[in-house]
Amino acid sequence: MFEDEIEKYTALQISKEGRSKIELVVAKEFHFTIFLNGAEFVTLLCSSQNLEYLTAGFLESESLIKSKDDVKNMMVDPRLGVAHIEIQGNRKVDGNFYPRRLIASGCGGGAIFYNLDDANTRKIESTMKISADVIFALVNEFQHGSQLYLVTHGIHSAALADRKSILIFSEDIGRHNAVDKLFGKCLLEGESTGDKIIISSGRISSEILYKVAKRGIPILISISVPTSLGLKAADELGITLIGNVKGKKMNVYTHDWRVS
Amino acid sequence: MFEDEIEKYTALQISKEGRSKIELVVAKEFHFTIFLNGAEFVTLLCSSQNLEYLTAGFLESESLIKSKDDVKNMMVDPRLGVAHIEIQGNRKVDGNFYPRRLIASGCGGGAIFYNLDDANTRKIESTMKISADVIFALVNEFQHGSQLYLVTHGIHSAALADRKSILIFSEDIGRHNAVDKLFGKCLLEGESTGDKIIISSGRISSEILYKVAKRGIPILISISVPTSLGLKAADELGITLIGNVKGKKMNVYTHDWRVS
Repeated sequence: MFEDEIEKYTALQISKEGRSKIELVVAKEFHFTIFLNGAEFVTLLCSSQNLEYLTAGFLESESLIKSKDDVKNMMVDPRLGVAHIEIQGNRKVDGNFYPRRLIASGCGGGAIFYNLDDANTRKIESTMKISADVIFALVNEFQHGSQLYLVTHGIHSAALADRKSILIFSEDIGRHNAVDKLFGKCLLEGESTGDKIIISSGRISSEILYKVAKRGIPILISISVPTSLGLKAADELGITLIGNVKGKKMNVYTHDWRVS
Repeated sequence: MFEDEIEKYTALQISKEGRSKIELVVAKEFHFTIFLNGAEFVTLLCSSQNLEYLTAGFLESESLIKSKDDVKNMMVDPRLGVAHIEIQGNRKVDGNFYPRRLIASGCGGGAIFYNLDDANTRKIESTMKISADVIFALVNEFQHGSQLYLVTHGIHSAALADRKSILIFSEDIGRHNAVDKLFGKCLLEGESTGDKIIISSGRISSEILYKVAKRGIPILISISVPTSLGLKAADELGITLIGNVKGKKMNVYTHDWRVS
């Protein structure tokens, strides 16, 4: 029914019972580029079903079309991840900045998330290790840190930690903003990041890995779950990705040699 | 400690015990515009704390700066919601399309979310009503609808319903995409929306209200909670906003005369 929307993945699960390999199902993250009247318009991070609907709905939300009559023709190629749509009025869209942006799970980086043209993004070589007990302790401290979440239930949080405790805590209605605020503080105050750990309350899609890799951080812990491209990015960028931490149980998705 | 990040709000709560007014706390949603080297660059939807960090972290994530030395000067005015930042290299950013976009909770519409220049966005005048029992039944059907969520826990869903049942169900890793897919299907298949109800799994920030108002929909139900500007938008756009529906309890935030 939805084989195209999921991927199976084998992760290391650590719990009170010990370490074991488990098979998981993750949501597939898809990169979809819309060409509008012949010009590249936008790249969305999305699920790969119903791409015609997504194309039409996105353009309507952007006030570029109002009805089906405004669509002269549309061709979607799910294999290549592209749509070509022609709309009435031959509207020219200046794509000088906009198309280089990924939109959806919160607006990420380049058209390929771990943009190798970007000299700041490199594979993480750090040999830093962390114990499972430290991870449980950091997540416990993290979950008690957000006063704002406790009163509103409408906030994301992120934290920079070392292997003893949380150093910087950040909150925002957007999960990307929470992470950017952390890194902005590090940049302005000269705090090093390459020897640290990031903790996030949010889902892990590829854009977050791109941000974390740019700062040379070897370990990312999430309370939530990753998407398929989040896993792929963590693997290729050399980042240890830990997710779904609940009580005394966690999944280590990539580079599990860093978790002792 | 975080008075600037929250707003108090009085809503109607409906439960087995009946109807009562309750006071709630919601996360404040803030619009923050960054001017880069003298030109308008981007507007972020965010929380209003630590705006210097957000500015620096966002520009670093976008690969526009690499260290503090790249920042010639930065001036943030939290009252006006703007930052002026000058960076090395006098980098010119073409703002022809990009600055008109809101970024953060998922990339919304115009620079003012309920852009009154946009002839498609108008106050909803529908006199449609709905009973609390129907809302509970629709949410129950909605929560059992997402097979993909059940297996991955990494998916947002959205649905279009009438007062009997769910008509269209949509899923995506992004909450905006899920809603756009619904509306794209309506547009391409000539399905009317003005007499319908929208159900969403995601947090309700102002951009979603903007999308819903554009389609003339009078009632929006969310499993999750709204932000401050989500509430303000629902109020001003004439939309009945229902949130935090759990078991036999719900909050009706705006235009509660539609819920009988």
